[in-house]
Amino acid sequence: MAIANSPQSKEIVTAALLVIGDEILSGRTKDKNVRYIAEYLTTLGIDLMEVRIVGDEESAIVDALNALRKRYSYVFTTGGIGPTHDDITADCVAKAFGVPIDVHPRALAIMQERLAATGAEMNEARLRMTRIPKGADLVLNKVSGAPGMWIENVIVMAGVPSIMQAMLDEVAPKLKTAVRMLTETIRADAREGDIGTELGEIASAHPGVAIGSYPFFDPQLGPNTNVVLRGRDAEKLALARRAVEEMLQRVRAALSGKA
Amino acid sequence: MAIANSPQSKEIVTAALLVIGDEILSGRTKDKNVRYIAEYLTTLGIDLMEVRIVGDEESAIVDALNALRKRYSYVFTTGGIGPTHDDITADCVAKAFGVPIDVHPRALAIMQERLAATGAEMNEARLRMTRIPKGADLVLNKVSGAPGMWIENVIVMAGVPSIMQAMLDEVAPKLKTAVRMLTETIRADAREGDIGTELGEIASAHPGVAIGSYPFFDPQLGPNTNVVLRGRDAEKLALARRAVEEMLQRVRAALSGKA
Repeated sequence: MAIANSPQSKEIVTAALLVIGDEILSGRTKDKNVRYIAEYLTTLGIDLMEVRIVGDEESAIVDALNALRKRYSYVFTTGGIGPTHDDITADCVAKAFGVPIDVHPRALAIMQERLAATGAEMNEARLRMTRIPKGADLVLNKVSGAPGMWIENVIVMAGVPSIMQAMLDEVAPKLKTAVRMLTETIRADAREGDIGTELGEIASAHPGVAIGSYPFFDPQLGPNTNVVLRGRDAEKLALARRAVEEMLQRVRAALSGKA
Repeated sequence: MAIANSPQSKEIVTAALLVIGDEILSGRTKDKNVRYIAEYLTTLGIDLMEVRIVGDEESAIVDALNALRKRYSYVFTTGGIGPTHDDITADCVAKAFGVPIDVHPRALAIMQERLAATGAEMNEARLRMTRIPKGADLVLNKVSGAPGMWIENVIVMAGVPSIMQAMLDEVAPKLKTAVRMLTETIRADAREGDIGTELGEIASAHPGVAIGSYPFFDPQLGPNTNVVLRGRDAEKLALARRAVEEMLQRVRAALSGKA
């Protein structure tokens, strides 16, 4: 991941992801992009705040785009930029921004070069992939000939994971990012219900740190819990960590005293 | 899946899924529920129209609940009904519906029975899991002691996959369902770009059938495409299938003539 030139912001930078495709909603295709993008943005210091998955339907896509682009620093989309009639993302982006869409000279040149190399023919379907909303920049990638696009704060990417990942690498150095979120995971060796009350008190006393509690089942020891602390200030995080560890010692001692 | 008693509707029955949890958005936890629920609802004859993933934040959850419950026949939620401070789904549901929330006698009795069996103690954290918005029915499950809930068209389930799945089995027989969507998949043995124009024409000529095109890479043959037809009318589906197959024969013959 190339983040060398990222302009780093003191503000929090937020993002939403809009996954477009009937095949995800019908369960036919398993989405592989949400977690990849979630981890990628977290590593960059961008907070993914919301994900929406909608079908290949104009009003659903346009409404989601307009709701999300006003609310977050960036909106990433995946899916719907192929050559077939059910690929309508570029048109929906144009509609959401109220701009015309037309064949983009550079996108066309890239496509023609690609076709010359593979021996395939230009036709109406392939020409669809060179249509770009006015004002958008191309997001090039080396995996496929069809570019993604970037217009204002919306970044439009392919749904095929390998192509999407190449596009994300392409835009990453240009994204505004913030101080990275630090994370600590503490294995509680106690059930969630045994530590919940005290954990809530610690969370209230450490407002700069987000504390999450995630139950899991240990095949040897039974029900267990991971406590995850997240924050941007290392000192605050260390204080919260100490508070959690001390609480866990107390609770475990009390439980083993009873057993 | 028990669907014997499902009241079947002639109308289309729609649903949205709201996944709640910071851990999904940070990429720490991979969601395992979206595809399971998508397939489950499709099999029942319920159209999943939208998925949203939001963090453990009251306004995000309440806003999403209120937007989705007005738009779709059902809203399913996963996550945020455990014993810790970051589990706020029940309170958000109460807030979205404008109803009070309090300890539910039956939920309390189930919890006490469970604790008696496991030897764990009742405490403030565990008591949180017995708080149910006024007017909601419990969604029982045999995996965990803490019930889900069903209020108007909103069904609130656990985030842990095994518990969520048990809750879905519990509510399935009571859901209104529609005639099941029929699906056919045709392997094109052609690139998406080679069939896109003709496929779009077939899609326009067969309005009762949704036609999707999904590129994939065959390690032996290279770029390929699956064409997926979906519809509720078997006759219309068969006609569209024939049109696609005839078109594919023509296109493949033309391509091999050139090669």
